[in-house]
Amino acid sequence: MLKLYTYWRSTAAYRVRIALNLKGIDYQSMPVHLVKDGGEQHKAEYKALNPQGLVPALVTEGGEVINQSMAIMEYLETTYPDISILPIDAIGQAKTRAMAQMIVSDIHPLNNLRVLKMLKNSWNQTQVDLWYAHWIHEGFTALEQMLQGSNTSFMNEMFPCISDICLVAQVYNAERFNVPLNDYPRLMEINQRCMELPAFKEAAPEAQLGEVK
Amino acid sequence: MLKLYTYWRSTAAYRVRIALNLKGIDYQSMPVHLVKDGGEQHKAEYKALNPQGLVPALVTEGGEVINQSMAIMEYLETTYPDISILPIDAIGQAKTRAMAQMIVSDIHPLNNLRVLKMLKNSWNQTQVDLWYAHWIHEGFTALEQMLQGSNTSFMNEMFPCISDICLVAQVYNAERFNVPLNDYPRLMEINQRCMELPAFKEAAPEAQLGEVK
Repeated sequence: MLKLYTYWRSTAAYRVRIALNLKGIDYQSMPVHLVKDGGEQHKAEYKALNPQGLVPALVTEGGEVINQSMAIMEYLETTYPDISILPIDAIGQAKTRAMAQMIVSDIHPLNNLRVLKMLKNSWNQTQVDLWYAHWIHEGFTALEQMLQGSNTSFMNEMFPCISDICLVAQVYNAERFNVPLNDYPRLMEINQRCMELPAFKEAAPEAQLGEVK
Repeated sequence: MLKLYTYWRSTAAYRVRIALNLKGIDYQSMPVHLVKDGGEQHKAEYKALNPQGLVPALVTEGGEVINQSMAIMEYLETTYPDISILPIDAIGQAKTRAMAQMIVSDIHPLNNLRVLKMLKNSWNQTQVDLWYAHWIHEGFTALEQMLQGSNTSFMNEMFPCISDICLVAQVYNAERFNVPLNDYPRLMEINQRCMELPAFKEAAPEAQLGEVK
């Protein structure tokens, strides 16, 4: 069985949990607590598995370790293709991947735990909050604009794709940081539609009951 | 013919130029000056094409716009598969994509123009330089460790892949910021091997003669 090294509140691990659920893939959850004792992800044991010291990491049935949520989701799409999380056509795939990357590369890494921690060394909470909100608004404004005039149920298709997965995890994170999102009606509508699906609901941080402390 | 909206010094555009060259794809270069007049990428004309206001953006022969370098490289791999920039097997692909993402998501977005500009509003140059170097060392240390014991000519294969493309563009950037890279002998060896190939050489910032001012 696949093993997923995960943390309930990690945005990147949340993405992979959704992808696994959408595809109906059974997996074993391996919790890595990112806060307790200074963070279990920094321990030698975990870094031997994933030298980057970040979650998620997927261990395949053959024992191969794959890190980085985008790489893991692409791997799942290649090896479990029955329920797809990418469009069929090359242009659709490109647009889906681009929207996902706009979140995965240009919003989340600027706002994740390790970065905010570093900024807090020299900034007060208000400055950090402004920084956080800035990158959400930059990215979501562009995404909302790119979706203007589109009428698909999800960002790129009539079924949820990698882009929607990344959106949902990022919206959760933004709401946790109290960023108002009413300027993004199309994104919020898609987010809500996703959250009605069991695959998304069951992947949500608060649904990781065994882990939430 | 494909059109690439590019800037000679942009790390992300550099990646796409390498991919196009490796695959031997002819394209028209559309320069977007990221510094002149406060940055041409912020102008309404360019943002109508790419709402994110970043380079690169690729316009296909059918007139479709694809943004985000990773999405563009994946698109090129799908539509021009003859010369591959991904391994054939799913695990190899996953590891290549993960290494690429470690650079594309966890190094570059923290160190690019728009972020450093924002940090300079409250930090002095020394603080900004320390920030820059920190993310290079975090990412390169993990990559170097992941490559320990491997003896492929490039990061994941005997031919250059997406991961190598991302590495080369990031090394160029790090050297520009005077970050010492001697702790990463394997990465440096691969970087050098890449830079001996015409596809990489001709994509280099300084080779964009028409653009360099």
